[in-house]
Amino acid sequence: MRYLMHFSYDGSCFFGYQAQRNKRTVEEEIEKVLTKLNHEKFIQIYASGRTDAKVHALHQTAHFDFEQWDVENLRYKLNQLLPKDIYVKKIEEVSRDFHARYHAKKKTYVYKINCGEYNPLKRNYVYQYNRPLDIEKMREASSYFVGEHDFTSFAKGNHKYESAVREIYTIKVDKIGDDVEITFCGNGFLQYMVRNMVGVLIEVGSLKREPKEVEEVLNRKDRRCAGLTAEPVGLYLKEVIYEE
Amino acid sequence: MRYLMHFSYDGSCFFGYQAQRNKRTVEEEIEKVLTKLNHEKFIQIYASGRTDAKVHALHQTAHFDFEQWDVENLRYKLNQLLPKDIYVKKIEEVSRDFHARYHAKKKTYVYKINCGEYNPLKRNYVYQYNRPLDIEKMREASSYFVGEHDFTSFAKGNHKYESAVREIYTIKVDKIGDDVEITFCGNGFLQYMVRNMVGVLIEVGSLKREPKEVEEVLNRKDRRCAGLTAEPVGLYLKEVIYEE
Repeated sequence: MRYLMHFSYDGSCFFGYQAQRNKRTVEEEIEKVLTKLNHEKFIQIYASGRTDAKVHALHQTAHFDFEQWDVENLRYKLNQLLPKDIYVKKIEEVSRDFHARYHAKKKTYVYKINCGEYNPLKRNYVYQYNRPLDIEKMREASSYFVGEHDFTSFAKGNHKYESAVREIYTIKVDKIGDDVEITFCGNGFLQYMVRNMVGVLIEVGSLKREPKEVEEVLNRKDRRCAGLTAEPVGLYLKEVIYEE
Repeated sequence: MRYLMHFSYDGSCFFGYQAQRNKRTVEEEIEKVLTKLNHEKFIQIYASGRTDAKVHALHQTAHFDFEQWDVENLRYKLNQLLPKDIYVKKIEEVSRDFHARYHAKKKTYVYKINCGEYNPLKRNYVYQYNRPLDIEKMREASSYFVGEHDFTSFAKGNHKYESAVREIYTIKVDKIGDDVEITFCGNGFLQYMVRNMVGVLIEVGSLKREPKEVEEVLNRKDRRCAGLTAEPVGLYLKEVIYEE
């Protein structure tokens, strides 16, 4: 049987999603528990995508093959055995050819920036910018990202992609209390792409760049003309959607 | 010179406020930094009160004696040297006889309960009850606490107090998203008193006790007839007020 699990995690104490030797990762914690339930025969899970160290997930997905099991009972057992910073929200049966990564239609990320006073209780949950940002200019700048573009300028610097073309459906810039929250919805994102877009949006919001420069930077297709990569600490994978 | 500092901290990684041998505490971290700035001559700080292990403070206060120093510069230096889970919001000069504990007029605590699905990102910031609570019954029950009472039934079990009489000015029970937040404002609180009141309010909200039983429990002046002590993890010291 193939199953799709929906889960959330606090990225603070993980070296990211993907399994790495001698490092605590989300993938390894889940595979360890599934393997234990499978009488120590290794179970591999396949996520919708990786998240970097310190990045959170409000809703991540992964598929895996496993013996026939009541999904609610399996979910209960996993939550009993998993560490407290991972939580399985739902497990469902899917067809044998389902793939959590290749079949994902849309993904949503949110990036949270604290523009107010430093808050020690949120040090792992928002980027502590602690200065005001011009929301209107950030909204204007973000509109240049929407649509289908070659995002080479916003990809990880030293990485070669078969294609850096992605489509962004919407970007919302909201002020919620002292926080600015930027929500990106698209058909897929290159590694570091959200954090690199946020880096430029913060430059625009702090009046170091004009909103329309985003268009030029996109057209140049050169990582060196974009800006800084925003810290991982404010980033959340918010939703993975499979239906149109 | 005597100074009053206003600060916040994330209690997750501390064994409480008060200094203890070989344990990481808020008091010791601050005293270490002040002592360093005082050329290694020990500086003691006096807080408005202790908080237990894992309890947070949105606004805590403490006074200390120190050489004449620009308060904004001292605040800046402290925040540079303190760990990231403590933050100094403000320092002000006060009179020589000022005492952060004895001169406090009002204190506010808030207790946060997640009545929705378990949330791994909030595991250190709310009590994960994960079931619904009857807010109206909790409001009714909380009204019996308001006013001047002997709170022996809600004190720490094995502790003897000179007087267990305290006055509670207001208690608010709010539903904010999936969270129930209970805010207590009073002239002072005995050790464990807020957590013990929350313990009974949760019993009322989950229909295990009638609201009016709170009155009986108060009148009995016996810790054994109250309920459980709520977990520290949802508790925040929210404000300390010195002016009337």
